[in-house]
Amino acid sequence: MKNYWCILFLLVLTNTTTAQTPEDIKSSVRHSIDELRQFVALPNDALNADDIDRNIRWLGDKFNQRGFNTSILETENLPLFFAALPMEDTKPTLLFYMHLDGQSVDPSKWDQTDPYETILKSQDGEGWKTEDFADLDADINYDWRLFGRSTSDDKGPIVMFLNAIDLLKKDGKELAFNVRVLLDSEEEKSSKPLPKAVRTYKELLQADFLIINDGPAHPSGKATVIYGCRGITTLSLTTFGPIKPQHSGHYGNYAPNPGFQLAQVLAGMKDTDGKVTIPGYYDGITINEATQQVLKSVPDSDEAISNKLQFKTAEKVGAFYQEALQYPSLNIRGLGSGWIGDKARTIVPATATAELDLRLVPESDGTRLKRLVKKHIQNQGFYITATEPTIEERMAHDKIMMIKEGSVTDAFRTELNNPYGQFLVNTMSDTFKEDVVQIRIMGGTVPIAPFINELQIPAFVVPMVNADNNQHSPNENLKIGQIAYGIQTFYALLSTQLPN
Amino acid sequence: MKNYWCILFLLVLTNTTTAQTPEDIKSSVRHSIDELRQFVALPNDALNADDIDRNIRWLGDKFNQRGFNTSILETENLPLFFAALPMEDTKPTLLFYMHLDGQSVDPSKWDQTDPYETILKSQDGEGWKTEDFADLDADINYDWRLFGRSTSDDKGPIVMFLNAIDLLKKDGKELAFNVRVLLDSEEEKSSKPLPKAVRTYKELLQADFLIINDGPAHPSGKATVIYGCRGITTLSLTTFGPIKPQHSGHYGNYAPNPGFQLAQVLAGMKDTDGKVTIPGYYDGITINEATQQVLKSVPDSDEAISNKLQFKTAEKVGAFYQEALQYPSLNIRGLGSGWIGDKARTIVPATATAELDLRLVPESDGTRLKRLVKKHIQNQGFYITATEPTIEERMAHDKIMMIKEGSVTDAFRTELNNPYGQFLVNTMSDTFKEDVVQIRIMGGTVPIAPFINELQIPAFVVPMVNADNNQHSPNENLKIGQIAYGIQTFYALLSTQLPN
Repeated sequence: MKNYWCILFLLVLTNTTTAQTPEDIKSSVRHSIDELRQFVALPNDALNADDIDRNIRWLGDKFNQRGFNTSILETENLPLFFAALPMEDTKPTLLFYMHLDGQSVDPSKWDQTDPYETILKSQDGEGWKTEDFADLDADINYDWRLFGRSTSDDKGPIVMFLNAIDLLKKDGKELAFNVRVLLDSEEEKSSKPLPKAVRTYKELLQADFLIINDGPAHPSGKATVIYGCRGITTLSLTTFGPIKPQHSGHYGNYAPNPGFQLAQVLAGMKDTDGKVTIPGYYDGITINEATQQVLKSVPDSDEAISNKLQFKTAEKVGAFYQEALQYPSLNIRGLGSGWIGDKARTIVPATATAELDLRLVPESDGTRLKRLVKKHIQNQGFYITATEPTIEERMAHDKIMMIKEGSVTDAFRTELNNPYGQFLVNTMSDTFKEDVVQIRIMGGTVPIAPFINELQIPAFVVPMVNADNNQHSPNENLKIGQIAYGIQTFYALLSTQLPN
Repeated sequence: MKNYWCILFLLVLTNTTTAQTPEDIKSSVRHSIDELRQFVALPNDALNADDIDRNIRWLGDKFNQRGFNTSILETENLPLFFAALPMEDTKPTLLFYMHLDGQSVDPSKWDQTDPYETILKSQDGEGWKTEDFADLDADINYDWRLFGRSTSDDKGPIVMFLNAIDLLKKDGKELAFNVRVLLDSEEEKSSKPLPKAVRTYKELLQADFLIINDGPAHPSGKATVIYGCRGITTLSLTTFGPIKPQHSGHYGNYAPNPGFQLAQVLAGMKDTDGKVTIPGYYDGITINEATQQVLKSVPDSDEAISNKLQFKTAEKVGAFYQEALQYPSLNIRGLGSGWIGDKARTIVPATATAELDLRLVPESDGTRLKRLVKKHIQNQGFYITATEPTIEERMAHDKIMMIKEGSVTDAFRTELNNPYGQFLVNTMSDTFKEDVVQIRIMGGTVPIAPFINELQIPAFVVPMVNADNNQHSPNENLKIGQIAYGIQTFYALLSTQLPN
C-alpha cells in the first residue's frame, strides 16, 4: 500500500489544482453566504410537501444557472432533485448525494425568533453575539458562524458545491469528472422512498463512485474522509404486571412487578464492562493490523471524550473509541414504567418498557442480532408476543415479553484500501497540506446502504461542516471557515484527474 | 380465647342495640344523601386553605346541631376539626378519626362535568346511568351509587356518623361512650402536621381506644375490622451515563449506559419469585398458628384476585394474599430513562431512575430497611451520593448511585386478641348477623402510627365504604347500601356497652 501512496503523491504534485488565491476564496465564500441565506429562508420540513417544492424550484434555478440539466424524480412520496452536467464519455462519473430537507424546528427553543432567518454571530466568551452581515463586506472572519436550520445539515454543503462550480468556471478549469447530483427530500425522515427510487432511476444515477456530503467533519477540524457508517435497528421490550396499575400497599409483593422482570432480563444482556454477553452478538468481526493502524491514526482523545461527557471509564467493547465503533451496540435508549420524580405514585405499574437501539456494522445483520436478543429473552423463560397479550396469554404465562421490532437500516463500509478512497484522501491532503482523518465507520447512520447495494459502487462520506454544528437541535450553525473548506474541497475533487 | 368469645356473645344478646326498623334506616339514609350532596359540593383540596375553611365551617354547624362542642385545632399548617359530646366520667371514651380533605380532581378524567356535584347513578350493563334524586323519595335502591369527590373518601363516613347520632337520639338511646371526633384536613397530603398536633392536643384527644373510619371494607362486602396497616417509605435511585444525552450512534457501546447499570442493581434485589434477597429484609417476622388462622379466615379468593388483575402467578413472598401483607414489600413503582414509545430517541440517556416504595410492617423499621437496600447497592460497587454528583465525583467513580430517601410512615398493628377489637367484632357480627372479616394488617397506609404512639391506645380501622369506590381516582363513588351499613355500624358501636 505504501508504494501506491507514493505514486499518487507524485501524480498530485504534477497536477496542482489549488490555483485559487485566498481572495478568490473569500469572494466565493461571501457569495455563498448570501446564497445560503436565501436558501435557508425557505422552510424545508419534509412533513410539508409545499416546503419541499419551493426548495426544489430554488435549486432548479441555481443548478440551471451553473449549466446543469435538472430533473424532478418522482417517488412514492416526495420527489428527489437530480442535476447533471452534460456527459463526456471519456470521463469517469462522480455522483454526489446531499439532502435539501431539514429537521423540524421548535422556535421557542432557539436563541433567535425565526430558525429560517440566518443570523450571523461571533463568539462572545461562552455565548454568542449577533453581527451585521454588512461587516462581512470589508473582511470575512472565518470563526464567525451562520445560525439557522439546515445551515450545516445539509444546505450549506449544497451551496458550497454550487460556488465551487462557479470558481472552477472562473478559473477556466476543466472538470475531471462527469458530475451527477442527487438531492434527497426526506433524509431527516429516514429516506424511506430512496431504495425504490434508486432502483427506478438506476440508469440516471450510474457512476463510478458516490460521495455523500452530509454530517460533520472530525472534531479536530481536520479534513475527513469516512468509509462507512453504522446501521441501526430497534427493539421495544415490554413486561407485564397487573392489567391496570394497582395500589402498591394492597398489591406490592403480591401482583408481579413488571419493572423487576424487565430489570432481570436486561441485566443479563451485558456484563458490567458493557460487553454484550448474548452468544454470537459479536460474531464475524475481525480487525487486522492494517485496519488497527488506521483506527489508531484518528486523532481522537479518549480522555477528552471522557472529560467532555464526564464519565470515568468507557464501556470496554473496544479498547479505544474508534475500535468500539467497529462493533454493534446494544443501547437502552429509554426506560419507562409508572412515573418518576414529582409524578411518582405508589402503584404497582401495569407494564415496564425498555427501548433498545442496536447500531449495526456490516458484519452484524440487524435481523440476526434481533433474533439473538429474542432468543436470549426466551431463554429467560419469557413467552414472547408481538402484540398486547390477550387475557388467555396473560393467564397462561408467568413471564410475558411483548417485543416490537423496528426496521433495519443496514450499515455500509467501503474498504479502506479502495482506490477512489485513496484518491479522495490524497487530493484533500494535498489541498490542505495536512493528514486527512480517515474514519473506517462513523457512529451515525446514513440511510444510504440500500442505495449503494443497488448501484454497486464504492461510497464515501466527505463531510463539510463543523462537528459542533448542533445538527438536529436548536441553534444549528455553520462556521464560515467551513464554507471555504467546502469550496476548496469540491474544487480540488472535481478538477483533479484520477490516477490511471 | 374461645371462652371469652362466648361470654361476649351472651352479653351482646342481652343488650340488643338494633332497635331501628328498615324504614327508620331508609329515612336516615335519605337524609344522609342530601347532607352528603351539600358536603361534597364544597371543594376540599388541601392545597387550597380556603376550601378547607369552608368545609370546617360546614362541619361546625352540623356537629353543633347534634349537640357537639366543636373546636378548630390550629397546627403548623391547616387546622384540624375537633368535636366532642359532653363528657360523663363514668363512661369509657371513644375517639373517632376521619378526614375532610379529598384528593385533587382532574375534571377532564371524570364522567361528569363537576366532580364536586354529586351525581346519582344506577348500574347499566357494564356502564352507569344517571338517575334523578327525586326517584329516591318513593324508595331507595341500595345498589345505586353517589358519584363525586370524597363521597367515599372520606366525607361519606362523616355524614353516616352524624346521621347515626340523629337516629340514636330519635330512638332515645343512651350512648355507651364519651365520644370525641377528630377530622383531619391533610390526610390526602400525608397528614404532616398530625404527629405534632397530637402531642399539642394530647389531653383533648385522650380516649380508651381509637376508631379510624377510612378506606374500603373487604371486597366481599362483609363487615370488616382492621387491626393495622402497613407503613411506607420510599427510595429514589438514579444512575449516571454521559453528562447530557448523547447520540447513540456516536456513543452507544462507549459512553456508560445508565439503564444497564440500574437494571443490574435492581435485578439483584429480588429472586424470580419476587422474594427480596437482600439479607435481613424479612427479619423479625413470625406468624404463629393463631394468627395464621385469622389470616386464613379472610374470605379472599386469591384466584379471583389473579383473574381480576390478569396474572398467572402471584409473587411468593407469602403463601397467599393475606400472608403476603404480613411482610414488607419492595416495589418498583416507576422507571424512567430517556424516552419510550413514539417519543423514543436514539440516545444514550444521561440518567436512569427507579422509584421504589417499601411498604412496612411493625417488625420492619423503615430506616433499617432503607439502610439494607443502600448497603446492597454499595456492595455492587456503587458510590452513593444523596445529591447530583459533582464533576469530581463523576470522574472518580465508575458507578454512581444517587439515592433520595423518602420519610418513614410507620406501620401500626393492634393485637388480634385486643378486647376492644373483640368488642367491635362481636357488636358488628351481632348487628349484621354474619362473620366479621378481620384483617390483621391492611395494604394501604394510614398516617396514624405517630398518633397512636403518642396516645398509647389501641386503634382499629372500621371502614364504611365499598371496595370498588375508585378512591383517589376519577369517578369516586359510594354505594348507597354502604350508607345504611355505616349508620347501623355507628349506631351499634355507640349504643353497645363494653363488657365489664
